[in-house]
Parts: sequence; structure tokens; C-alpha cells
Amino acid sequence: MIRIAVDAMGGDFAPQEIVAGAILAMRRDPFQLILVGQPDAIHAELDKHDTTGLDIQIEKASEFVRMNEQPAMALRQKPDASILVSTAMVRDGRADASVTMGHTGAGMIASLWNLGRIEGILRPAAGITYFGLQGDTFVIDVGLNVDCKAQYLLQFAVMGSVYMQKIRGIPNPTVGLLSNGSEDNKGHEVARETFPLLKKSGLNFVGNVEGMDIPFGTVNVIVCDGFVGNVALKLTEGLSEELLNAVERTARETFPADAFTTYLTPALSRVRQMMDYTEIGAAAVLGVDGVSVIGHGRSRAKAVVSAIQQAKTDVERELIDAIKQGWAEVALKQVI
Amino acid sequence: MIRIAVDAMGGDFAPQEIVAGAILAMRRDPFQLILVGQPDAIHAELDKHDTTGLDIQIEKASEFVRMNEQPAMALRQKPDASILVSTAMVRDGRADASVTMGHTGAGMIASLWNLGRIEGILRPAAGITYFGLQGDTFVIDVGLNVDCKAQYLLQFAVMGSVYMQKIRGIPNPTVGLLSNGSEDNKGHEVARETFPLLKKSGLNFVGNVEGMDIPFGTVNVIVCDGFVGNVALKLTEGLSEELLNAVERTARETFPADAFTTYLTPALSRVRQMMDYTEIGAAAVLGVDGVSVIGHGRSRAKAVVSAIQQAKTDVERELIDAIKQGWAEVALKQVI
Repeated sequence: MIRIAVDAMGGDFAPQEIVAGAILAMRRDPFQLILVGQPDAIHAELDKHDTTGLDIQIEKASEFVRMNEQPAMALRQKPDASILVSTAMVRDGRADASVTMGHTGAGMIASLWNLGRIEGILRPAAGITYFGLQGDTFVIDVGLNVDCKAQYLLQFAVMGSVYMQKIRGIPNPTVGLLSNGSEDNKGHEVARETFPLLKKSGLNFVGNVEGMDIPFGTVNVIVCDGFVGNVALKLTEGLSEELLNAVERTARETFPADAFTTYLTPALSRVRQMMDYTEIGAAAVLGVDGVSVIGHGRSRAKAVVSAIQQAKTDVERELIDAIKQGWAEVALKQVI
Repeated sequence: MIRIAVDAMGGDFAPQEIVAGAILAMRRDPFQLILVGQPDAIHAELDKHDTTGLDIQIEKASEFVRMNEQPAMALRQKPDASILVSTAMVRDGRADASVTMGHTGAGMIASLWNLGRIEGILRPAAGITYFGLQGDTFVIDVGLNVDCKAQYLLQFAVMGSVYMQKIRGIPNPTVGLLSNGSEDNKGHEVARETFPLLKKSGLNFVGNVEGMDIPFGTVNVIVCDGFVGNVALKLTEGLSEELLNAVERTARETFPADAFTTYLTPALSRVRQMMDYTEIGAAAVLGVDGVSVIGHGRSRAKAVVSAIQQAKTDVERELIDAIKQGWAEVALKQVI
């Protein structure tokens, strides 16, 4: 049985929504749950649920990182923080994966510290599936590495490609390099250096892609540094909100009140849900030597279920081994 | 009377929409129009309009840059290209501003070549007003400089700030540095180097801003390199299209057909118009020693009017002198 360590203290609605979501996930598809955090708080939440027949353990962690803390400093000051305990369990072979809805930066740093890098991988990166307006696109890196070298971006491409193949079942995923134009010679210095590396990587590299290709879902994997990836992700969040609000505002003028409520409200809330980061996906920290999934801080139970399912799939399909193998193959091609 | 050189051959709908738009602009508010391009083609378009009492001249240019050409190469091969003739007229004091709806890259390079840099400005940049969902934000650079140094970004901030003050009438515009987090220490190397320069610039610098602050209109000026600015702009274009299509698709399921057509279609088309780059604003090439405005390639007459009006305002309010003065003041503060 797969053992998932879930950071019960991380996230805006922890521990209640985390515990509720974890139990929901177990009912759907059993696994061994290890709730990491303050035992009293966790017990209080567990008491609200029927946990008959569920394999739930509690791993004590006396502290946790708050959402507004400076992550590296907080982790140094709190060696018994829940996210450190949770990732350490994976490192020590006591769990197969770590899942948190807590501080994103802290989750990433804790993963790096405790799981370490896969041999040969220079910089682990965070990837996220950009929701499917057209087709799903995995964007990597979305924030771990703001200053990148071409070799890093090459490795992001390998890890993203392996992820989409193994986890999303896409054979030979297409890979695009995010740039300021689709022509081969476009891009800043690092992008221009990355281009030939991707060309001879053996990956299904289709060339440079542009900003619109992210929502258009033109390729399966979009490679970029964590600075532009982060800007793109947050711009998406903000623009989606603003645009849907603009539709709502405008429609209030063209609609009679009853038609607005009857027809438009449900349509808009469906699209809002489609774009809701707290509902869909979670960031995968790739390149560390163990499975670590970081959901949105505002996650409710439903999103916790999907983050846990993502972690389970990563374990079942042996994502870490696949990344090791994927990189070994590409590294060989780089030498030749 | 202000003299505007308009590239009659540039844009997807040139020369017809360009000539139509220019005449429309003259009827609203007179100026001296110089249509640059192939005389036969221009005359054929002028014949379709009543030009009585309008001060229209034609400046011959035997060639033009097509939208799909590699701009620098095309300009080298076509010394008599309309965009080169148009910007040369500004350089030679035969026109006060150049306006084109043609190839963006060619327009920028031609401006650089013919107008030259303002003394002290290291790199001219392209700025665009990010449409007002909340408040208008001027984003600079959106594509001219993909590899930037801190000094360049400082100058972009000065030019953007002067632009919003002079042209949009905003006193003491707020300036934000685009980064991957709002904390002072966030950002890649160049952004982190730019931060202290902006701090002591005397500009109304509010600190780092994030991707969502672009659509939120949090600040009047957002400073970034042309790589991330270009990605942000194209992501906006693509995501707006995809999101509004998603609303339409979803609403087709929740709406009875007649309510859809009566109420939703007009609301959506209003929001689409709000987000339509071909309708709103045009890129300003700042830092060159003359007024140069570049509209969207898909511009129709109405967008041509607004690009011409933008150019006129730049001339009337003496934008170039204001940038010279603005930079002189900030440069002084950098030394102290």
C-alpha cells in the first residue's frame, strides 16, 4: 500500500480541510495516510469523521511554517516544522510521497533539503499543468529558479517531457521553448543557448513558442525560467479574475436581472471553476530524489484530494526512476 | 500645424484602412498628413474619399516591409521601404511624427536607425498601455530589449513615468518593478540590481510587483525586460481570447438560444472590444530622438485614428523634451 505523508498544518484552511480531503481521497482509493503535524489538532479533526477501516497514522511535528513567513529563515528556525518532517519521512523511506498545501516556497526548499537532487540534475524545478482551455500544457519552471543557464532549461524540458509521458500518458510529448517570437533565432541569451541543446536532445522539440501558446495549449511542455514562468502564472490568475469580472459587470447592463441569475451565473461559475488554481492540479517539484507535491495555499478538501491523487500517480508510475532514465538518455546525446 | 508621416503601406489592411483612418483623424482634428508609400496605390485609395480642404501630401516610397519578413534584413534590402522613408522624414525635420501599422520589429528598428537615441539613453524601449480593466498601466519594455542590464531598466522606468505624466496626465506616476514576488529581495539578478537604482531614482517607486498586478492596474508603470514583457503581452492576448471563448461555449449550454443572442452576444462583444489590441493604443518607441508610434498590424481605420491621435499628443506635449529632462534629473540623483 502506498504511504502518503500529508502536511496537516499547511494551507489557509489547515488542518480541517486537509484532514477532510485526505479522508475523502482514502475513501475513493485506499492508501496509507500519515498526517504530519500537531497531534491534538489532528485528532480534533479526525474526530469529526468516520475513519472506520482507514489506515491513518499521525506523525508528530511541533511547528509549522505560516503562509507569510520568509521560507528559508522559517525552516531554519523550525527544524520540527511539519513540511520538514513530511519530506524527511520520504527521505527516510517511511513514506512514498509528501503532500502539502502550505507555503509554496517552504515546500520547495524543504523538498530540496530533505530529498536532495537526482544525480546529474543541476537544478530541481517546479512544474504545473496549465489548465486545459484547449489542451493541457505543463509549464516548467514556475518559480524555483529565477536565474537559469541553458543546461538547466534543457533538464527542465527532459523532466517536463517525462512527466507528461508518464503521468498524463502522452506518448512523445511536444516541447516548446518559451520565447519572444516563434523564429529560431528569437529569445534572450539563455534561450538562444538552450535552443541547440533542445534540438539535439532527442526530445520532441518543436521550437520556440510564444506567450499565447500557453493558453492555446500548442505544445505539451513549455520550458522557461522560473522568473517568467512565475509572472505568466500570476498574470493568468489575475487576468482570469479581471476578465470574468468584466463579463459579469458588462452583462449586468445588457441582461434583465432574472436572466442574469438563471443563465449567466451558472455559466460564469463553471468557467471560474475551470480557471481556479485552488481546484486544479498542484505543483510538482521535479528533480528532487522523491515525490513531493505542493498544492495551492487556498486549497479546500476537493483540491487536497487531487493533490494526493497526483502524488499517488507519481509513485505508482515510478516518476523518479523515469526522470533518472530520461535524463541519462538525453545526457548521452549531449555528449555525442 | 503638426505634420504626421503615416506609413500607408504597413499593416494587414494597408493601404485602404490606413488611408481611411488617416482621413477620419483629420476630420476630427486637423493636421498635415503625409502619406508615405506607392503613389498609385495611395491615389487609388484617396479617390474613394472626399478630401476637400484637407492638407494631404504624398511622399513616395517604392517598397515596403511585409509582415512575415525578417525585419533587419528586409530593411537592409529595401532602403526605400515606406517605414524607413517615414522615420527619415522625422529625422530630417520634414515631419513631426511617424505612424505605422506595419511590421512591429521593422518599425522599431527603422526608428532606431533613423531617429537615433536620445543622448544618455542606453537602449530605447517599446511601451504599451495595458488596457484598463481596473486602471491603465504602461508596460515597458514589451519587446525591443530581450537582454537587459539594470541601467536599462532604470531608464525604462524614467521614460514610462514621463510618458504617463505627460501624455496621460497622471501626476507623479507610481512605478513597479515586475518580479516573481512582491518582497524587496525577490527577482532575478538584473531585477535585484535594478531595485536599489529605482529606490534612489526620485521616481515614485513602490517596489516589486507581480504578474497579477499587470491586469489589476496596481501601478501606473510596470518596468520589465522586453522578453518577459513580450510574453506577458502575448499571453494576455491569447488568454483573453480563450477565456471569452470558454464563457461563450459554456453559456451555449446554460442559455436558451434566444437569450444567448439577445443578452450575452452584446455583452461579450463589448468585453472583446475592451481587450482588442487592434482597437486600443499603440506601442510607443521611447528613447529615440523623435516621435514614433507603431500600431497593431491588424488595425482597421478606427485604430489608425487612435494611433495618429497618440502621435499628435506626443508632439503637442513635447514628449521627447520631457524624456530628456526626466532622464537628466534622474541621472543626477544616480551620481550623488
